[in-house]
Amino acid sequence: MTLQDQQQHFRQRIDNYLGQCLDQQPALAPRLLGAMRHGLLLGGKRVRPFLVYSTGTMLGLAEEALDPLAAAVESIHAYSLIHDDLPAMDDDELRRGQPTVHVAFDEATAILAGDALQALAFEELAKAQVADAATFKALLLLLSRAAGFAGMVGGQALDIAATGQALDLKALEQVHAHKTGALIRASVLLPALAAGISDAQYQSLATFAEKLGLAFQVQDDILDITADTQVLGKTQGKDQRDDKATYPALLGLNQAKTMAQSLVDEALSCLASLPYNSEHLAALARYVITRER
Amino acid sequence: MTLQDQQQHFRQRIDNYLGQCLDQQPALAPRLLGAMRHGLLLGGKRVRPFLVYSTGTMLGLAEEALDPLAAAVESIHAYSLIHDDLPAMDDDELRRGQPTVHVAFDEATAILAGDALQALAFEELAKAQVADAATFKALLLLLSRAAGFAGMVGGQALDIAATGQALDLKALEQVHAHKTGALIRASVLLPALAAGISDAQYQSLATFAEKLGLAFQVQDDILDITADTQVLGKTQGKDQRDDKATYPALLGLNQAKTMAQSLVDEALSCLASLPYNSEHLAALARYVITRER
Repeated sequence: MTLQDQQQHFRQRIDNYLGQCLDQQPALAPRLLGAMRHGLLLGGKRVRPFLVYSTGTMLGLAEEALDPLAAAVESIHAYSLIHDDLPAMDDDELRRGQPTVHVAFDEATAILAGDALQALAFEELAKAQVADAATFKALLLLLSRAAGFAGMVGGQALDIAATGQALDLKALEQVHAHKTGALIRASVLLPALAAGISDAQYQSLATFAEKLGLAFQVQDDILDITADTQVLGKTQGKDQRDDKATYPALLGLNQAKTMAQSLVDEALSCLASLPYNSEHLAALARYVITRER
Repeated sequence: MTLQDQQQHFRQRIDNYLGQCLDQQPALAPRLLGAMRHGLLLGGKRVRPFLVYSTGTMLGLAEEALDPLAAAVESIHAYSLIHDDLPAMDDDELRRGQPTVHVAFDEATAILAGDALQALAFEELAKAQVADAATFKALLLLLSRAAGFAGMVGGQALDIAATGQALDLKALEQVHAHKTGALIRASVLLPALAAGISDAQYQSLATFAEKLGLAFQVQDDILDITADTQVLGKTQGKDQRDDKATYPALLGLNQAKTMAQSLVDEALSCLASLPYNSEHLAALARYVITRER
């Protein structure tokens, strides 16, 4: 199976599952549910669910057992995009080629849709098939910290504080390690915790995920310069106009490309150290720097 | 111990514990952490922690074991107030006699502080001292549903949709059962789940919490008319100006007072059916309709 087939399979799987999650909500506030659906189901690469499914099946877990974990990380991701796009934040009107949630609905509904999707993520996590309380606790700590102040939300605050500031490489990496890296790391490590692998293997997967997450971000910065708006599905050149620190701005475009390649190589070598068939994860890592959006 | 002493004891306990939670966060985004602190620690009656501690100790749990549950519900409550006060929502500048978070900081920081406090709630829940995976799962389902679309956030959406509409009693009760009732119910039922009581006793506590939550809301509506801004700590008469449906508006002030009293009586009769010393919960129920803010 090619990476593209595999991506499509997992994308369809998570889209179906997330659609069912929303269908099962009580008939209460249809406009809010519509906004949640808009934010959660309107396309996207589904990188985080791909990581959950690929890591989990590599470690011997069934896809059915991985659905709630994949839904949890994707719900966190979707809520963060809705809130990031708000006028008081990045003020973006276009996302995945479609109007953002506060444009398609309204600002209050977008705030609430994000809030509800965060809660939905933890509701899904509760459905994880886990035998003991200690593993449950570890899953919950991992996701809540990856999503919260010590992870994604803290990273978003760092990113806002950094706008217009001259960041060095280390500071920029800190932003990304939190803003996007923490949830990508959780997407790999939640199924690892659920599968109960050794500490050494867990650590290799953690490093893999950290390198992969950073490579993704470097490539995102590169694409913001090189891709056009239609292919990208979001406004091209926005980082520069917003005066955001980026890898190409700090390193130049060629050096940024070299950095992305090195990160992918390091990620691949982590995978090579594991006694599992990691072909899907490896294919994704290689795809990170060949993708056009 | 009087109710006042008991309230003070639990208030100090949760304030200390929440302060420690924030102190233990990594040094990452100080402005965001400041906003979280502002929202989480600037006073408040701490009704939800009181319910957690009173219910849990009544059922034989130690206060230490209840700290994470109390912190979880209060963090959810605090985040909801921060987001409710935003300009796109209720646009409130005063809360507990202090500037709201988006006024004291800024709108983006307030959105993120709310988001981070929701994640913190689930991080705290992970610290619950629970022996088996099934109980953990039940705690997580209860809190996530109480907080999310099927609970508090859905109720907030109903409330927004209802502004300017003529609601009947049933529709108004549906708003409150979700917007504030779900989290009050969870505050009573999380320790009940952790203690592992019988289904019948769990049901009595659920009904107690539902009646209590509604009584609280009826009295809030009454106080919005009868109390003055300084005692209330928030802008008096705001419901009327915002053209919100309230119990006094629907029933008249006297009938609303009668309704609050009936709800408290029903709550007390649920407690009386339990084989525990429920004096603290009973005192709180009586306080609901005698309080002035």
